[in-house]
Amino acid sequence: MIQVSVCGPRDATPQELSQAREVGRLVAERGAALICGGYGGVMEAAAEGAASASGLVIGILSQPTRDGANPYLTLAIPTGIGEARNAIIALAGDAVIVIGGSWATLSELALARRRGKTVVQLGGWRITDADGNPVEGVAYAETPEEAIAKAALF
Amino acid sequence: MIQVSVCGPRDATPQELSQAREVGRLVAERGAALICGGYGGVMEAAAEGAASASGLVIGILSQPTRDGANPYLTLAIPTGIGEARNAIIALAGDAVIVIGGSWATLSELALARRRGKTVVQLGGWRITDADGNPVEGVAYAETPEEAIAKAALF
Amino acid sequence: MIQVSVCGPRDATPQELSQAREVGRLVAERGAALICGGYGGVMEAAAEGAASASGLVIGILSQPTRDGANPYLTLAIPTGIGEARNAIIALAGDAVIVIGGSWATLSELALARRRGKTVVQLGGWRITDADGNPVEGVAYAETPEEAIAKAALF
Amino acid sequence: MIQVSVCGPRDATPQELSQAREVGRLVAERGAALICGGYGGVMEAAAEGAASASGLVIGILSQPTRDGANPYLTLAIPTGIGEARNAIIALAGDAVIVIGGSWATLSELALARRRGKTVVQLGGWRITDADGNPVEGVAYAETPEEAIAKAALF
Repeated sequence: MIQVSVCGPRDATPQELSQAREVGRLVAERGAALICGGYGGVMEAAAEGAASASGLVIGILSQPTRDGANPYLTLAIPTGIGEARNAIIALAGDAVIVIGGSWATLSELALARRRGKTVVQLGGWRITDADGNPVEGVAYAETPEEAIAKAALF
Repeated sequence: MIQVSVCGPRDATPQELSQAREVGRLVAERGAALICGGYGGVMEAAAEGAASASGLVIGILSQPTRDGANPYLTLAIPTGIGEARNAIIALAGDAVIVIGGSWATLSELALARRRGKTVVQLGGWRITDADGNPVEGVAYAETPEEAIAKAALF
Repeated sequence: MIQVSVCGPRDATPQELSQAREVGRLVAERGAALICGGYGGVMEAAAEGAASASGLVIGILSQPTRDGANPYLTLAIPTGIGEARNAIIALAGDAVIVIGGSWATLSELALARRRGKTVVQLGGWRITDADGNPVEGVAYAETPEEAIAKAALF
Repeated sequence: MIQVSVCGPRDATPQELSQAREVGRLVAERGAALICGGYGGVMEAAAEGAASASGLVIGILSQPTRDGANPYLTLAIPTGIGEARNAIIALAGDAVIVIGGSWATLSELALARRRGKTVVQLGGWRITDADGNPVEGVAYAETPEEAIAKAALF
């Protein structure tokens, strides 16, 4: 089964939430499972979108219990390993779609690239070298459909 | 959704494998998800049993890729955190059923008890104090049905 | 530099604390570094003993900050990974000395044996198979000196 | 004891290695312990610099053994948790100094900022929002001395 990790901040803009919902829906419609951090914001919106299309949704939680998990998860995996769980989210997807920016989100993007995963970003932060030249390795998309296409899994 | 973790060694006896298959089937028939370590032996037999009853089966892998995962998993989560992932398996179940004995299995049992989880054991190793008195906190079952009953989730 | 992990419960008997202090002192006197969980009870007593002999003492903390670390550590490493850090304590020692029993302590013993580490136990819990026969692989000592000798590092 | 984490890539430029050596030396001269990832490149250069000033140097290794650790570490902690150990490096420093850029390095920077740590960067990658405006939260330094000053620990 294809697995897609979707990452993004708890504190997200309405546009980011809308994009996350649509990405989640598209992932589920294509028969893939959605992996996310399991809490609010982009994580919840992506889960909601996937659940609306009857998709399988797994939340990899930082906390040791399922408290605080969003209600759209098929299953929540409480890890108790804190932000180190971001490394698991980065590994668990065949590709990683990043929506919006935060330090936690950036860590997931970086850990995914560290492992050579395909990473597609909608909005969010940009990475350049010290001279302002873009660092290669992340694809950018303008729409959820384009993000799914660039994930190149289907 | 109720989640049951099933733990046990890769190198298992035919009886342990048979018990694991039956435990997996019973978990799935009751509508619960099965969590396991995702590889061979007891992990695979439990997954096979759950899959035979169309259950949801999640393998929490120690390795950073899905290589070596058994074929009965609905989803595999490659963690890349080695044996530290045993702590996640211990946390992810509402109860933990242990079948057979090994050092890795004992670590899962101990980590589950450390967090106050209900642990039911079929066969496997026993723990006593220095005077030979059993250490309290693990329930023992003779059959898969008894193990499910003592897990007290349904 | 030789590294010795010392594991044991927070809630320890006076005898266990005394043994831990002596083990810590002996480890430091032999020029080895002591690794422990960094909090109270056996962890603190072992750290105190090593510090009394000017040894290097590292606490591998489960929490994400240094709060609650005992005052005898040269350095505290806050991991934020909860009980999964027990796997690190088990790996970080060239040998592991276990004093007293608890579920967390048992998980460290089991994880160390899982990796083939030499484990020496003073007091604490015993592991048998279902028929009551001792499970091989842990050495037992009656005194701190014997524990150090059986660790076979010096 | 004050603890400073120094992060940077294995594949580093001569300038980055020189800066790392100098940062390590300055950290040790101020009586602080140096935490790093324990392998080559920036990690090794920082460790070498600290060791040259008789400082305490801890390598938090991703692998489960001490193989591959650089020779300047006082102690190596093999974690076996892969890149998830980047979260520990980020937590273990009272401040984090980043030298040079790589995906792994960026993950450490991001995890440190996620926890509100002071992060000072020498060279390396830059983070902007989608409009090219710098994301606040990382201090930049031109020299090792300036990096130490901006870490604001001494």
